[in-house]
Amino acid sequence: MSTSTDNHDREEGLAFQPKFDASGLVTCVATDAATGEVLMVAHMNDQALRKTIESGEAWYFSRSRHALWRKGETSGHAQRVVEMRMDCDQDAVWIRVEQSGAACHTGRRSCFYRAVTGSGGDTRLSLVDADRLFDPAAVYHQKT
Amino acid sequence: MSTSTDNHDREEGLAFQPKFDASGLVTCVATDAATGEVLMVAHMNDQALRKTIESGEAWYFSRSRHALWRKGETSGHAQRVVEMRMDCDQDAVWIRVEQSGAACHTGRRSCFYRAVTGSGGDTRLSLVDADRLFDPAAVYHQKT
Repeated sequence: MSTSTDNHDREEGLAFQPKFDASGLVTCVATDAATGEVLMVAHMNDQALRKTIESGEAWYFSRSRHALWRKGETSGHAQRVVEMRMDCDQDAVWIRVEQSGAACHTGRRSCFYRAVTGSGGDTRLSLVDADRLFDPAAVYHQKT
Repeated sequence: MSTSTDNHDREEGLAFQPKFDASGLVTCVATDAATGEVLMVAHMNDQALRKTIESGEAWYFSRSRHALWRKGETSGHAQRVVEMRMDCDQDAVWIRVEQSGAACHTGRRSCFYRAVTGSGGDTRLSLVDADRLFDPAAVYHQKT
């Protein structure tokens, strides 16, 4: 009963009540405010969410590095948040952003630079909008 | 070394190699192919992914019901997939869809019908594009 009430409030109410998963994260989808293209899917913990809201720039939580990071802090390719929305059960966030340069660590504008083609055993990927805007080896000082 | 090679292949190669999490899932973002609006964020297991690719209609895996489901099987509001893309590390899928009716179980076109406003202790939600296209109580035979 209380769970049902909680769910109803979370879905229909106007209180900001992010529902973090067992790791303390919500999923965040960033789209290009101008084109609607999906730039990336990443995660935010409570602190990343608050910093994003307060600064107007996207902050994320890296699951692999287990660290808070401001998008663009190394590459310079920041995201200015134009609008933030929560989904029905408040476990996912959609931000519409002005992306400076490239969103993807591989140097592409979007992380989604490959389309799925074919089906069954013949399912493959094909490059779409896959030009690099920067050289990741130069930006991150790592082998690619 | 092998991990690094695997990551490189997964990011730069054209082999379809979805990277499922510990629960066997990838994250899926569905956007409206016509407007670019984010309709929903959900999950797919291997079977949902294959069925989506083979049928051209979106299938998901419900974490709460622990069940495979075809989008629209109860509501009739199916999603025809126009394009499917994988992200750099292949743990997220973006599908551009033709949405029949409403994507959200609350009856709204999109699950993202509330914007985040204010900041600090004053962070609130406000309704945006929140008109219902159907009555969930009538469609799902449940209390709302």
